[in-house]
Amino acid sequence: MKLDVFFSTAGLAPQEVAGRPVFVVDVLRATTVICAALYHGAKGIVPVASVDEASRMAQTLGPEDVILMGERNSEPIEGFALGNSPLEMTEPAVRGKTLIMSTTNGTRALLATQGASEVYVAAAANLALAGARARQLLHTGKDLVILCAGKEGRFGLDDAYAAGRLALEAIEGRRRRKGLNDAALVSVDLARRFKTWERPLTLSAAGRQLAKLGMGADVADAARENAYPVLPVFRDRRITTAAVA
Amino acid sequence: MKLDVFFSTAGLAPQEVAGRPVFVVDVLRATTVICAALYHGAKGIVPVASVDEASRMAQTLGPEDVILMGERNSEPIEGFALGNSPLEMTEPAVRGKTLIMSTTNGTRALLATQGASEVYVAAAANLALAGARARQLLHTGKDLVILCAGKEGRFGLDDAYAAGRLALEAIEGRRRRKGLNDAALVSVDLARRFKTWERPLTLSAAGRQLAKLGMGADVADAARENAYPVLPVFRDRRITTAAVA
Repeated sequence: MKLDVFFSTAGLAPQEVAGRPVFVVDVLRATTVICAALYHGAKGIVPVASVDEASRMAQTLGPEDVILMGERNSEPIEGFALGNSPLEMTEPAVRGKTLIMSTTNGTRALLATQGASEVYVAAAANLALAGARARQLLHTGKDLVILCAGKEGRFGLDDAYAAGRLALEAIEGRRRRKGLNDAALVSVDLARRFKTWERPLTLSAAGRQLAKLGMGADVADAARENAYPVLPVFRDRRITTAAVA
Repeated sequence: MKLDVFFSTAGLAPQEVAGRPVFVVDVLRATTVICAALYHGAKGIVPVASVDEASRMAQTLGPEDVILMGERNSEPIEGFALGNSPLEMTEPAVRGKTLIMSTTNGTRALLATQGASEVYVAAAANLALAGARARQLLHTGKDLVILCAGKEGRFGLDDAYAAGRLALEAIEGRRRRKGLNDAALVSVDLARRFKTWERPLTLSAAGRQLAKLGMGADVADAARENAYPVLPVFRDRRITTAAVA
């Protein structure tokens, strides 16, 4: 068994994800938002690196079924229909639509998974489903990666806690910690220390920044475990809902 | 008060260290080795990025008082007099000498501090002295950085624990955690969880790798708190012993 956690995409080498299943975590807020959007009927989400690319992609796909959404420094992007709040991803807003998503850290993490065998999106919002898939993959001998988006290439408490909760789901029932890398060991520790999501999310720099910007409700929403039970899978540049056994 | 821990140099932006005092931590083994060498009478240590640069520097400084030391993938470098073990830094070997040091992660971290107001070297070996200086700096209103060398740009449990122990020394007596970044919060947690150095060092990937290479004695030596009580300061490309009040 091998389970590696990476606290950010900085310094990540392509061979570390090559051929392995990867779970991307950006609980505040990109991966929570993805779960919320798919749960409420979005057809798919296309993460793009830049605002320009978002506009080009919208033209390519045809504007009628497409919505631009995302953030820069946590704030909505001018000219985009939606920001990066899970609370905006209501059924009337997203059902049947394809979302073109441009966020700072979450998008970077998704795009850093190139070469992975499969890529899933995880958050508190889909912990049980993501955890079940991770456990299944470990049981079949796969070497898992949990990739935290982090904050501008750095450690984020919110994502580290989420990685720990997911890792605990994945290794459930196993007592040995032998295949965990140093970051996974610490994540699992964190997951044991905080029993619920509220505290690590509100303590984290990302959570404090959102609270300061008046987006504390997003933090509270991101802390709701299994609030949006879907398993998003990222394949061919597009995130859709994976079939769950 | 502001105390930032960075778990590795990957993604570190120059403005994050600019004008701030920085403590560099690479407990397995570079910063432990530096403490051991200075404690046993080395005149100074010059960290260099490459083996070639080490040879050039030795020629520039004149070969008689100079010793080449370092490692690549934890192993001694061919043609170098000393490896990267604190146990090699005996008084007969190093007294009065200048060491040209080339190590993988520790050197990179030292060289990443460019622009800092002052740079110290910390390890278990000099915890009390480094901690006292850090506390002093915080008390005079300085914003501290603890920079972990990490392992190939990634999180290392050994350095994160050391950062936490140092942070606890620095903030001693303060109850509020407000000025700590996410990585500092987690480091302090780790420091509280493991009371002594042995366990986090032997659990860490770096510690396990050294044990596998037959260098378990180095790990045990690096775990000896205050074994080499000196305060190394890095200034004008050279590490020497700082005066301690």
